[in-house]
Amino acid sequence: MDETTEVKVLDKGFVRLIGLLGGDQRVVQAARVTYGSQSTSEDRDKKLIAYLLRNAHFSPFEHSVFQFHVKCPLFVARQWMRHRWSSFNEVSARYTEMPEEVYQPQAFRVQDLKNKQGSVAASSLDQQTALDEYRRAMEASRGAYEKLLSMGVAREMARLALPTSQYTQYYWTVNARSLMNFLALRMDEHAQFEMREYAGAISGMFAKAMPWTYEAFCGNFTEKGSLSKCLHF
Amino acid sequence: MDETTEVKVLDKGFVRLIGLLGGDQRVVQAARVTYGSQSTSEDRDKKLIAYLLRNAHFSPFEHSVFQFHVKCPLFVARQWMRHRWSSFNEVSARYTEMPEEVYQPQAFRVQDLKNKQGSVAASSLDQQTALDEYRRAMEASRGAYEKLLSMGVAREMARLALPTSQYTQYYWTVNARSLMNFLALRMDEHAQFEMREYAGAISGMFAKAMPWTYEAFCGNFTEKGSLSKCLHF
Amino acid sequence: MDETTEVKVLDKGFVRLIGLLGGDQRVVQAARVTYGSQSTSEDRDKKLIAYLLRNAHFSPFEHSVFQFHVKCPLFVARQWMRHRWSSFNEVSARYTEMPEEVYQPQAFRVQDLKNKQGSVAASSLDQQTALDEYRRAMEASRGAYEKLLSMGVAREMARLALPTSQYTQYYWTVNARSLMNFLALRMDEHAQFEMREYAGAISGMFAKAMPWTYEAFCGNFTEKGSLSKCLHF
Amino acid sequence: MDETTEVKVLDKGFVRLIGLLGGDQRVVQAARVTYGSQSTSEDRDKKLIAYLLRNAHFSPFEHSVFQFHVKCPLFVARQWMRHRWSSFNEVSARYTEMPEEVYQPQAFRVQDLKNKQGSVAASSLDQQTALDEYRRAMEASRGAYEKLLSMGVAREMARLALPTSQYTQYYWTVNARSLMNFLALRMDEHAQFEMREYAGAISGMFAKAMPWTYEAFCGNFTEKGSLSKCLHF
Repeated sequence: MDETTEVKVLDKGFVRLIGLLGGDQRVVQAARVTYGSQSTSEDRDKKLIAYLLRNAHFSPFEHSVFQFHVKCPLFVARQWMRHRWSSFNEVSARYTEMPEEVYQPQAFRVQDLKNKQGSVAASSLDQQTALDEYRRAMEASRGAYEKLLSMGVAREMARLALPTSQYTQYYWTVNARSLMNFLALRMDEHAQFEMREYAGAISGMFAKAMPWTYEAFCGNFTEKGSLSKCLHF
Repeated sequence: MDETTEVKVLDKGFVRLIGLLGGDQRVVQAARVTYGSQSTSEDRDKKLIAYLLRNAHFSPFEHSVFQFHVKCPLFVARQWMRHRWSSFNEVSARYTEMPEEVYQPQAFRVQDLKNKQGSVAASSLDQQTALDEYRRAMEASRGAYEKLLSMGVAREMARLALPTSQYTQYYWTVNARSLMNFLALRMDEHAQFEMREYAGAISGMFAKAMPWTYEAFCGNFTEKGSLSKCLHF
Repeated sequence: MDETTEVKVLDKGFVRLIGLLGGDQRVVQAARVTYGSQSTSEDRDKKLIAYLLRNAHFSPFEHSVFQFHVKCPLFVARQWMRHRWSSFNEVSARYTEMPEEVYQPQAFRVQDLKNKQGSVAASSLDQQTALDEYRRAMEASRGAYEKLLSMGVAREMARLALPTSQYTQYYWTVNARSLMNFLALRMDEHAQFEMREYAGAISGMFAKAMPWTYEAFCGNFTEKGSLSKCLHF
Repeated sequence: MDETTEVKVLDKGFVRLIGLLGGDQRVVQAARVTYGSQSTSEDRDKKLIAYLLRNAHFSPFEHSVFQFHVKCPLFVARQWMRHRWSSFNEVSARYTEMPEEVYQPQAFRVQDLKNKQGSVAASSLDQQTALDEYRRAMEASRGAYEKLLSMGVAREMARLALPTSQYTQYYWTVNARSLMNFLALRMDEHAQFEMREYAGAISGMFAKAMPWTYEAFCGNFTEKGSLSKCLHF
C-alpha cells in the first residue's frame, strides 16, 4: 500500500485508504485452513468466496483488514462509530481548536411522509430561504465558538456551541466482515443521503481491493432484495 | 428491580437504573464455577471479589449486567458510545423532532494551560459575556432548526443546525466489567467535568447494587494512583 | 427468576436458565426510545418486534440478557465459545480434578458422503464393535489421568490425556441478539447433532422467555430457507 | 511482509507471522490524529508511545494488526480462543482427518502445592513411568480414532476419542492492543508453561515488528510488578 487512494465526499470531506492487510486470496487461505484443502485454480477460489458468503461463513473475511482516514460531519461520524467491531481514533476538540468547516448541503430535502426517517428532493422548497436560515445559524455558532475561545474559555466548553454539521476526522480500521456489515446497512436506501455518499466511496475502494468478495457480496445481497443499489457505485 | 432509581445530572439530564442482573453473589458464583469450590462465608466471598479484581481476573464480573436510561448532551454521548462492549439504543433525530433542550453550563471554565485537554475554574472570566454569547448561538441554532422544520425540511437535515450541547436519550446495557472500565476512564480527573458528573451518578448506583465489588474496585484503583477520586461520590 | 429451569441434554449434560434481564417488553421499550413513540397495544408491540427482526434492526434485542449454566462435552464447548459477543466462566482443569464423565453416544453415525462435515445414521454399522473400541480408549485415557495424578503430576499436565468427549461446565451470559445468532448457526441442519441438542434446549427456554421474539425469529428464518427446523423444538 | 517468520514451539508446534499492518509509526500517526499534532523527531515519537501506554490510551494501538498461523495442542488453543477481540479460522476435525500429532512433554511437572493452578519441576517424579502411562493413553486414543474412521464412523464422531494434547492449526488476526493484553496474561508466571512458550514466541515477533511499543510495554508492566518475565524473551 504505497500510494494513498483518496475519494472526495460531500463538500469538504474525504475517505482515504491508508492501509490494507490481506485481500481475496487471504480469505481463500483462511477458509482452506478450516477445510484442510489446497487451492487449485482462480476459478475455484472465486467460487469458494461466493459459497462462503452465501452460507454465512463469515470468519474467513475477518483476516483482511482495511484502514481508512475519514473526514466527515459529526452527524455522519455518530452513525459510523456505532459499528463496534472496528477501531477509531478521532481528532479531539478538547486538545485542538476545530477549524471553520461545516457541511454545506447543496440543497435541502423535504420530509418523506411515507418513510418517517427519510427525506425526498422537492422542487417546491424555497432553497434560498432555507440556506440563508442555515447559514445564519452556522455563523452564530462559529462566532460564539471563536469568541469564547478568545475570552480564554476552555476548548472542551467552547465546543458546546459547535453544530452537528461540523467536520471531524478519524482513522478507522475494520476487517472485511465488519466492513460488509457497514456497507449493507449504510448503502441501504433507508440510510441518510450523506451517509450513503461515504459508504459509496468506501464501497468503491473495497471493490478494487477485493473484487471477488465484492462481486459475491453484491450478488448475495441484491438477490435477497436489500442493498439493491450496490452495483450503482 | 421493581423501582426505578433516578439521579439528576447537570441542568436537564438524568441517569436511571432500569434493570440489573446478578450482583456481588453472581460474581462469586461465576468464579466458583471456575475454581470448583463452594462458598463458606460472606467474609470469604468478599475477599474472593477483592482477589479477583487485584489479579485482573475480570471474567466473573461479566455475568452481572446493568441497564440504564440516560439523558445527556450530545458531546457527552459521543464519548460514552465509544465504549464498545455495551449496547445502546438512542432516540433518532431522523424519526423524531428534538425538544428544545440544550445544556446550559452554570459557569464557563477557562483553558488549562498545563493540561492541554483540560479546563479550570477562573474567577477572572467575564461569565456574563460568555453566557450571553453562548445563548445567542443556542437561540440561532434552535431558530434555524424550527424554521427549517416549519418549511418542510426533513428532520434528518434540519438537525444539522443543532449544537453538540443538545440533549439526547438512550438505553445503555453494560456488564460490571465493562462498567468498571467506563468508571475508571470517565471518573478520572482528566475526564471532562460534565462526563465525570454522569460517571459519578453511575458510580453511586453501582456502589449500591454491588457494594463488595465497588469497595474492591475503589481500593484497587486508588492504590495504583488512578481513580483517586472514586470514594468522593 | 426465582426458580431455575433445567433441561437434560445428551447422556450427562444439562442447560439451566439461571438469570434473565428484560424480555419482549424490553425490546419494545428500547425500540420506542429510538422512535420516540409510545406503546398502544400488545398487538402493535408484537408487530413492532416482527418488523425489527425482518429489517435487521437488531440493537433493541441487546437489552434482554440470558444467563445459563451449561454442562457439555469439550468438543461442544469449543464450538460454543467461538461466539465472542458473550461471556463465559468455565471450570478450570488446572484448579480442579475433572470427574469421570465422558460423553457416551447411544449410537455412532457414519460419514455423510455428500456433506463433507456431516454424518448420517446407518443401520449397517457394527455398533457394538464401535462402542467397544470407543470405551477402551475412554478407559485408557481415564486410567492415565488418574495414574498421573496419583503419582503427583500436576492437574494441568495430567489433563493432556483427557479426551474431547470429557464433560465440562460453564456459566454463559448472552444477550438476545447474540443468542439468536447462536441459534441460527447451531440449530442449522449442518451443525453437529450433539451441538443441535444443546441449541434445541436453549431454544426452548428462549421461546418461553421471549415468545413474541421467538415467533418472529422462527418466521423470519424459515422464510429465508435457513433454520427450517426452528419450529420443531 | 514478503517472507514468513517462523518459530518452532514445543515438540511439533509453530508460530508464523504471516501478515502485519502498521507498526510503531502507525501508532504515532493515529495518536497524532487525536491530538492534531505533527511528528517532529523519532525521539519524540518514542516518548509519545511510552506516554500512551503509561496512561492507558490504548486505542492508537488498535490500528496495527498482526496475523499469525499457529500450530498448538488443543488445551493451549482453548485458552487462546478465549481472547474475543481477535479472529480465528481453525482446521475443522469435522471436515478433515486429524494427523497423528499429539504433544509429547519432555518431562512431567508435579502439582504446585502453594499455587493451586500451577506446577513445578520435580526430580523425585518417576518420569519413565509417567511417560509410559501417557503414551499408552495416546496410543489407545489414536487407535480408536483410526479404527472408528476405518469402520466408516463420521469424522465428527471419531474425534471424540482424540485427547486434548492433539495438535490443531489456525489463523489468528489480532491488533496490537489485544495482542498486548494476550501477552500480559499469557506470559505471566501463573500461565501454564506450554502457553507461555507460545506467548514467548509471539512476543519475540512483536518485539521485532514494533520495537518502541514493545519496549514501552515491557517497562510499563515490569514497573507494576506483573509481566516481570517480559524481558527474558
